[in-house]
Amino acid sequence: MTRLAIIGPGLLGGSIALAARRAGGFHVAVWARRAEAVTELEQRALAEVASTDLAAVVQEADIVVLAVPIGVMASLARQIAPLLPAEAVVTDVGSIKAPVVETLSGIFAQRTHFVGSHPMAGSEKAGLEAARAGLFDGAPCIVTPDSQTDAAAVVTIHNFWQTLGGRVLELSPAAHDEIVALVSHFPHLLAAVLVNLVAEKNAAAFEFAGPGFRDTTRVASGPPEMWTEILRNNHTAVRASVEAMIEKLREIATLLDHDASMNAFLTQAKTQRDQLRFPKSSHA
Amino acid sequence: MTRLAIIGPGLLGGSIALAARRAGGFHVAVWARRAEAVTELEQRALAEVASTDLAAVVQEADIVVLAVPIGVMASLARQIAPLLPAEAVVTDVGSIKAPVVETLSGIFAQRTHFVGSHPMAGSEKAGLEAARAGLFDGAPCIVTPDSQTDAAAVVTIHNFWQTLGGRVLELSPAAHDEIVALVSHFPHLLAAVLVNLVAEKNAAAFEFAGPGFRDTTRVASGPPEMWTEILRNNHTAVRASVEAMIEKLREIATLLDHDASMNAFLTQAKTQRDQLRFPKSSHA
Repeated sequence: MTRLAIIGPGLLGGSIALAARRAGGFHVAVWARRAEAVTELEQRALAEVASTDLAAVVQEADIVVLAVPIGVMASLARQIAPLLPAEAVVTDVGSIKAPVVETLSGIFAQRTHFVGSHPMAGSEKAGLEAARAGLFDGAPCIVTPDSQTDAAAVVTIHNFWQTLGGRVLELSPAAHDEIVALVSHFPHLLAAVLVNLVAEKNAAAFEFAGPGFRDTTRVASGPPEMWTEILRNNHTAVRASVEAMIEKLREIATLLDHDASMNAFLTQAKTQRDQLRFPKSSHA
Repeated sequence: MTRLAIIGPGLLGGSIALAARRAGGFHVAVWARRAEAVTELEQRALAEVASTDLAAVVQEADIVVLAVPIGVMASLARQIAPLLPAEAVVTDVGSIKAPVVETLSGIFAQRTHFVGSHPMAGSEKAGLEAARAGLFDGAPCIVTPDSQTDAAAVVTIHNFWQTLGGRVLELSPAAHDEIVALVSHFPHLLAAVLVNLVAEKNAAAFEFAGPGFRDTTRVASGPPEMWTEILRNNHTAVRASVEAMIEKLREIATLLDHDASMNAFLTQAKTQRDQLRFPKSSHA
């Protein structure tokens, strides 16, 4: 039996609890800041322990998952660190890794281990009500050790995400941040810009949006506070993507009536896109 | 019994046949250029008549749907026009309307009526094998009369798409082209640019793409020849969207570390996106 402590009862925290229950072999304790969230956790029978008391949740934990916004991770980590058993392994689910790993590794270095994680299984829906056991099935779960990270702790966290259904990949924190800027943070921003551009140019056009526009802009419904925090924390890499996009758009504008070049450009995109593997589970 | 002639057995033509069968009250005839496509139509029992002979398909038609690429519409229309019964109503499914409506209205003006249509229910999958009866359910089906179009013929085509499950809307051909540039043609191009940008900057990043990137880029898998033709035919409006996007990206690049402004920007996008209505049916 692995004693699992989840800090934060949102979409990710709740889905981790459900996925752990589905997998079996876990004793699940969840910490929530608000008493109402504890009541909801109890009503949905999502955990063996649900509490607003950090000590009650983490004091016997083998694995602790910080599933809270990046901005509050450090202060919670400082409260948790002295309460943990020696050799506990702590991870997080933050969408940025370099600053998070640096800060949290320092906080947990004394008696325990920290290994950064980023399960790429968000949803435009937030909160416990959107949580589901299959959220991580086939989703890329990136584990981000640095040169200091304990090797055995990395194995523990790697296996943990695999048990929950994830497709586990490893990257350094810096490589992670650069890569997710390209395939997640910038595409998110781009979807929001597209929605606002249509609203500004001709809001009546929304009435005529079909399945293509629906999918292209789905992520623009994500929680603004969370994404503001992500974009700020990864602004250098995101800005590089913005600049690259501006350059490519300039280029493509000159090809709109050059059939051969445009066809080659679209064929290249189709070939790449057709090769991508994605989790079967949808964003439902 | 409405005698329906469908010219072209692709995704749209095949889905129209299936949707008409589901609705009932239609005698369906389908023309295909290739004998193999006729065999496939017969094997799937998609139509009462399947033939490579235009006359056999259209000679008793009440409604004719041109479901072929824009580039071949005019020449097919010229062959069909003299074969049609008087008072037949012809429509098409082209993604561009101003040039198509102008050309086809002229060709059919003698004894019959033409009304432009654009069912916004494509898919990244092309061909008869992807056809399905529910393709139009809840999808925006835009009917594009101009000042010359026969009013009774507009009603016929309006009702036709409604019977097939579509949500029918009307626009002038010019307004149509401007609006679909914003919500369809430019977003399509943008998805292709995003895929090619990631490929160029760091192709290893594809391995880390999650459901967000999957949905944002889905349309980039669409048929390149068709989209090349669409983008060329609507290049003025698409170029205007490209320019507007470049301007908005410049603006947003300066807000990446300004939390309040970025939060307001993302909140505006979320609010707009959350208000959009979309067909229930997915792109399956």
